[in-house]
Amino acid sequence: MRRSVIGGAKRTTTTTCLFLLNHAHHRSLLPPLHHRLDSSSSCDSPPPPPPLLPPLLPTCRTPVLKCEYAVRGEIVILAQRLQEELKAKPGSLPFDEILYCNIGNPQSLGQLPITFFREVLALCDHPAILDKAEAQGLFSADSIKRAWQILDQIPGRATGAYSHSQGIKGLRDTIAAGIEARDGFPANPNDLFLTDGASPAVHMMMQLLIGSEKDGLLCPIPQYPLYSASIALHGGSLVPYYLDEETGWGLEVSELKKQLKEARSKGITVKALVVINPGNPTGQVLAEENQRAIVEFCKQEGLVLLADEVYQENVYVPEKKFHSFKKVARSMGYGDNDLCLVSFQSVSKGYHGECGKRGGYMEVTGFSPEVREQIYKLASVNLCSNISGQILASLVMSPPKVGDESYESYSAEKDGILKSLARRAKTLEDAFKSLEGITCNKAEGAMYLFPRIKLPEKAIKAAEAAKTAPDLFYCRRLLNATGVVVVPGSGFGQVRTSPCFLK
Amino acid sequence: MRRSVIGGAKRTTTTTCLFLLNHAHHRSLLPPLHHRLDSSSSCDSPPPPPPLLPPLLPTCRTPVLKCEYAVRGEIVILAQRLQEELKAKPGSLPFDEILYCNIGNPQSLGQLPITFFREVLALCDHPAILDKAEAQGLFSADSIKRAWQILDQIPGRATGAYSHSQGIKGLRDTIAAGIEARDGFPANPNDLFLTDGASPAVHMMMQLLIGSEKDGLLCPIPQYPLYSASIALHGGSLVPYYLDEETGWGLEVSELKKQLKEARSKGITVKALVVINPGNPTGQVLAEENQRAIVEFCKQEGLVLLADEVYQENVYVPEKKFHSFKKVARSMGYGDNDLCLVSFQSVSKGYHGECGKRGGYMEVTGFSPEVREQIYKLASVNLCSNISGQILASLVMSPPKVGDESYESYSAEKDGILKSLARRAKTLEDAFKSLEGITCNKAEGAMYLFPRIKLPEKAIKAAEAAKTAPDLFYCRRLLNATGVVVVPGSGFGQVRTSPCFLK
Repeated sequence: MRRSVIGGAKRTTTTTCLFLLNHAHHRSLLPPLHHRLDSSSSCDSPPPPPPLLPPLLPTCRTPVLKCEYAVRGEIVILAQRLQEELKAKPGSLPFDEILYCNIGNPQSLGQLPITFFREVLALCDHPAILDKAEAQGLFSADSIKRAWQILDQIPGRATGAYSHSQGIKGLRDTIAAGIEARDGFPANPNDLFLTDGASPAVHMMMQLLIGSEKDGLLCPIPQYPLYSASIALHGGSLVPYYLDEETGWGLEVSELKKQLKEARSKGITVKALVVINPGNPTGQVLAEENQRAIVEFCKQEGLVLLADEVYQENVYVPEKKFHSFKKVARSMGYGDNDLCLVSFQSVSKGYHGECGKRGGYMEVTGFSPEVREQIYKLASVNLCSNISGQILASLVMSPPKVGDESYESYSAEKDGILKSLARRAKTLEDAFKSLEGITCNKAEGAMYLFPRIKLPEKAIKAAEAAKTAPDLFYCRRLLNATGVVVVPGSGFGQVRTSPCFLK
Repeated sequence: MRRSVIGGAKRTTTTTCLFLLNHAHHRSLLPPLHHRLDSSSSCDSPPPPPPLLPPLLPTCRTPVLKCEYAVRGEIVILAQRLQEELKAKPGSLPFDEILYCNIGNPQSLGQLPITFFREVLALCDHPAILDKAEAQGLFSADSIKRAWQILDQIPGRATGAYSHSQGIKGLRDTIAAGIEARDGFPANPNDLFLTDGASPAVHMMMQLLIGSEKDGLLCPIPQYPLYSASIALHGGSLVPYYLDEETGWGLEVSELKKQLKEARSKGITVKALVVINPGNPTGQVLAEENQRAIVEFCKQEGLVLLADEVYQENVYVPEKKFHSFKKVARSMGYGDNDLCLVSFQSVSKGYHGECGKRGGYMEVTGFSPEVREQIYKLASVNLCSNISGQILASLVMSPPKVGDESYESYSAEKDGILKSLARRAKTLEDAFKSLEGITCNKAEGAMYLFPRIKLPEKAIKAAEAAKTAPDLFYCRRLLNATGVVVVPGSGFGQVRTSPCFLK
């Protein structure tokens, strides 16, 4: 188990920050903290903490106040302020650009979209041009063909109509075929719910599963804060299980069992286990054997397995391979009657990185028809997800194939992006390893590095004086000195404040 | 006050259904109910009601079970089944097409999108073609210009990147300018939150405002069931106020006061008033004087005013005009310190009807910085709304102007759609008025008619025997006989089952 120590009596403390792989710039990542502690800057002082008592915010409900979301939190708000300063007064800061490494948002850092995907989207947005001669000169033959295929799957070819609340049936057929091709096991289009990215899908499951603070979900620590935020918003309890930094962020079933037992002894009904694979923010890729043990654990304990598999395309080491939990469960002979399993996928990650399109799906298997009906109802209250996102989800799960006109350019674009991500993962990892006071696990997958940083005593004292966590203090100083935006490890839950609820 | 009587001892009962204006087909809308009651059809028997006790659905929380959403409910699910039957066995039913009049989804019924909007969207999706000569032949000059303007507003021109959680700043500037032009009062881009349609915005406000079942929101009855559904999902209480059918669905402040008093006497903390203008499903357009009285009421009672103004472009009678609540409040001299006001707008309605694009915004004024921070946090947990929807929201609030190349074709398309909607509103209204046993108010705006239908005694007895509400029974028969999908009035809350909570 690993956690950072804050405000302790030790000479140094460790602190963990998120670094994105998505930028190749080289800068000094370590501001000369020990020299700069006595310097003053208006941006160094923390903003006043939001009032936490309902009487001060009579319109806000407590779960909203409790919810925290570090990847878009204080550091990012400060960065946006600095960006405005830079725009108003160029040259006024020690850097001329803000580098947002707080979140996986590759196109904001210059990554280009996959041409074939954008061609098809443009044609579906404006089908009136499909028949025109000029379109031949602007679009590849297979993008025109694919656009027609997709339009024919949409009732009335109406890309501006609400769809079925689970998404357009023809697109779900395509995605199901893609899942089958990936896993080698059948996928049912009626098990798919297309969503505006993975986040709304996660919220939907939380809404379904959480009735009170006595309902708990086992979540990895460190974890992408979407989970802690949505559990808090829906009034449930986060039951932490700790990834082992010493073994490359290993996920031990013994740890799961221990935490489950402890939570149950406190009267928590544990409903589900969240697993993020490849890991966010930790970057580990689970071994198939480990996944089998996790499936067995969920089956035995009657837990819903919520599998965040949005980084399934982002694996950078030859010795590791992504296996979906559905494939693993089916290969163990477990079907719908054995395990409730939800797999989340997104168009925002992978090599495509189409975050702004808000597309994704969840594959929901093993639930009774009555519960499925409730999930459908939750989907229907928001009518449907955006159609461009739905189309893109179908393209991601069914890209050009050998022989298609676009195949070569598509492959070159995809390989270029994935190679670049892998190269940058290694570059950053090596850079961290060469720095004094920093250790960092290998990034096997996903888009992040999660280094451990030892801070000098003077920095810790300064953080204490500023009544802020040392890692937050460090990230703020890093931003003020370099323009690089990272997220403090405490935002991912690395600091444990109570056994069953994260603040 | 008006409500239908079900299962009563009267010879006839009144029942109210939703009819969409969006289809010009003429069919017999009334199935010969009294002749067909003894015929049997597998689709006539209602599906078993979902089990309502948590022990039967141990994974579902109670608020999810309580939530109902009629516009995508039982009738729509039956229609989807019939559609599959028609596809598998053409000619097997007494009609050859399903007409979905259950929801405002104009493009699903053949309405074409506005060309200029789609040109800009296509160019923003695939900016690589902007510079190519062929683009000149496919796209209007002003759509190319507008696409460049929009791309320049997006950091790094990255339409595939997550944006600011409130939406791209430049697009918010455009929308704010559009609001100013509409109202004649300033609008602040920082007050705008761009969302995936109006529904997620309403959910966000419910999440903010509701802490327990003791928190209530005043909602019109009949009401668009998004409100009852989202209040139920967030565990609050719907405090109904009744629109007066006799006076064309009038909204009386005396009724608001009465219901507020009654709710408070039961210990409900009423947080907000929901007003839908133009009305959904009732189609009335509020008079400015009435709006002033509503604003005054909210100010005096300290209620947040949630103004659903998504039908602001859909007004069909020359004697009525849409006024935003913000304009009305500002014209009374009330500013940020006087009233908390949220206005919801969507790209799904109006003349454009771009439901599938999931774009919209809410303008949030009068809240303290602390509460605003919480709203921002809620927005940030879902990262951002989809960028195409954001772009479309900016286009809707800033369409082509006189002198632009697209202006004439844009105006012709817009006027054609609005005239067609007005004509169809009148056609349906006249048709209803000519039918025995049916009365119907004028549709001044929005997209629906909400007729009152007297059912014969035999139909009511048959409904009782089938243990179903007479209006639901009627809608099911109508669908089975004609393929026309409408929504029973009870789905909009016309049947009151308890003073503070709708089932």
